[in-house]
Amino acid sequence: MVGTGPGGNEHLTEAARQAIAAADTVVGYQAYLDLIPELIVGKEVASSAMMQEVARCRLALDLAEQGRRVALVCGGDPGIYALAGLVLELAAARESPAEIKVVPGLAALNSCAALLGAPLMHDFAAVSLSDLLTPWPLIERRLSAAAQADFVIVIYNPKSKRRVEQLGRARELILAHRPDSTPVGVVTAATRGDEAITITNLGQLPEVEVGMRSTVIVGNSKTFRWRDFLVTPRGYADKYHLG
Amino acid sequence: MVGTGPGGNEHLTEAARQAIAAADTVVGYQAYLDLIPELIVGKEVASSAMMQEVARCRLALDLAEQGRRVALVCGGDPGIYALAGLVLELAAARESPAEIKVVPGLAALNSCAALLGAPLMHDFAAVSLSDLLTPWPLIERRLSAAAQADFVIVIYNPKSKRRVEQLGRARELILAHRPDSTPVGVVTAATRGDEAITITNLGQLPEVEVGMRSTVIVGNSKTFRWRDFLVTPRGYADKYHLG
Repeated sequence: MVGTGPGGNEHLTEAARQAIAAADTVVGYQAYLDLIPELIVGKEVASSAMMQEVARCRLALDLAEQGRRVALVCGGDPGIYALAGLVLELAAARESPAEIKVVPGLAALNSCAALLGAPLMHDFAAVSLSDLLTPWPLIERRLSAAAQADFVIVIYNPKSKRRVEQLGRARELILAHRPDSTPVGVVTAATRGDEAITITNLGQLPEVEVGMRSTVIVGNSKTFRWRDFLVTPRGYADKYHLG
Repeated sequence: MVGTGPGGNEHLTEAARQAIAAADTVVGYQAYLDLIPELIVGKEVASSAMMQEVARCRLALDLAEQGRRVALVCGGDPGIYALAGLVLELAAARESPAEIKVVPGLAALNSCAALLGAPLMHDFAAVSLSDLLTPWPLIERRLSAAAQADFVIVIYNPKSKRRVEQLGRARELILAHRPDSTPVGVVTAATRGDEAITITNLGQLPEVEVGMRSTVIVGNSKTFRWRDFLVTPRGYADKYHLG
């Protein structure tokens, strides 16, 4: 499993590039493969916009078991809310003899945090609002726990065509522990041509456009905005004079 | 601020390489700069093993304000428990006119998770046990909240020469909500020559060597071990037949 990070080749690591170069077969979602055309030239490519995640991971594993050297390519980091777990679950279920390795990539939390400045300088929780595979009450429990313990909160999958109410509910749960003025960053399509970055606050979040390709970062009680940056202090100012 | 990821150049992104190449001045902790010798050839280098973080960030900002193009290099991701926040705090305190950009890198959580397989497939919380700048009761509150809401927990700074009791206390707090059998991964010096990976469980964690360069990942109630991998299922098995 190879992570290509956000957007195109710019955020690919050398290790990821080498892993793809060393493969004879590439499996991946077409939209990701379109971003790295020169890396997959001359390789056998199994891709489909329509293939489901389970089918894609199973195919990659099948091919690896047949002796192919397969790069299962995904955007972001395969290890964070992505395909690494599914491949290992499938492999465990069939006691697969395939040799499996995860090559990390920049996840949405890395790239979105960088675009916002420094919101993840202190303890943070990542929570996905997708209730396709996770019961919604558990998601609520996690949001409330993260909010009451003053974690910075990185919200993955805040919205989709069918998931429109969850972000509003998440906001209500967080507002039970934090003021309207809490800074919030919304990054959509990080590092892509149509990248959009909005800095707002919990009170005004409903007015901001959030979509399928957005990540939302909610500050903790100390996070502040300076210019177009969100900064979560780590506590230096309590110990040193920073002026 | 440029993140070089774990270890040497292998996990550096092209964007990080370009940012360092475009700089005329490089500021960084000597141990990190030693890992990227060919990238800093011919540049003015301000480094010191002894310089404190605050002095280093202030120097980088001073030089940038004097018109230099400065790369402040740090290992991992400058945006996760690293220097991006301190630079922005300093810049905000003096209303610095310097142009500031964060180039993300692979953080310890990305690289350690990849080495362990797929522990971060579901909601997780990152908590640092360093109480140098954070009151210990707040750290305890976060550990307990993360444990009760069944987050996978990534523990940064689990131990140092002077910080020897905290990991044991963290373990007790987590054990209040999770069984002894909960899988735990300990990664030390990820991707370096002396890299060490141990898979254990909460009950046996005290027997594992944990040091200053270690990251500890504690699974949630669903995380399982298969071979030398930790896997946190995302829920596919409840919906699809994976066998």
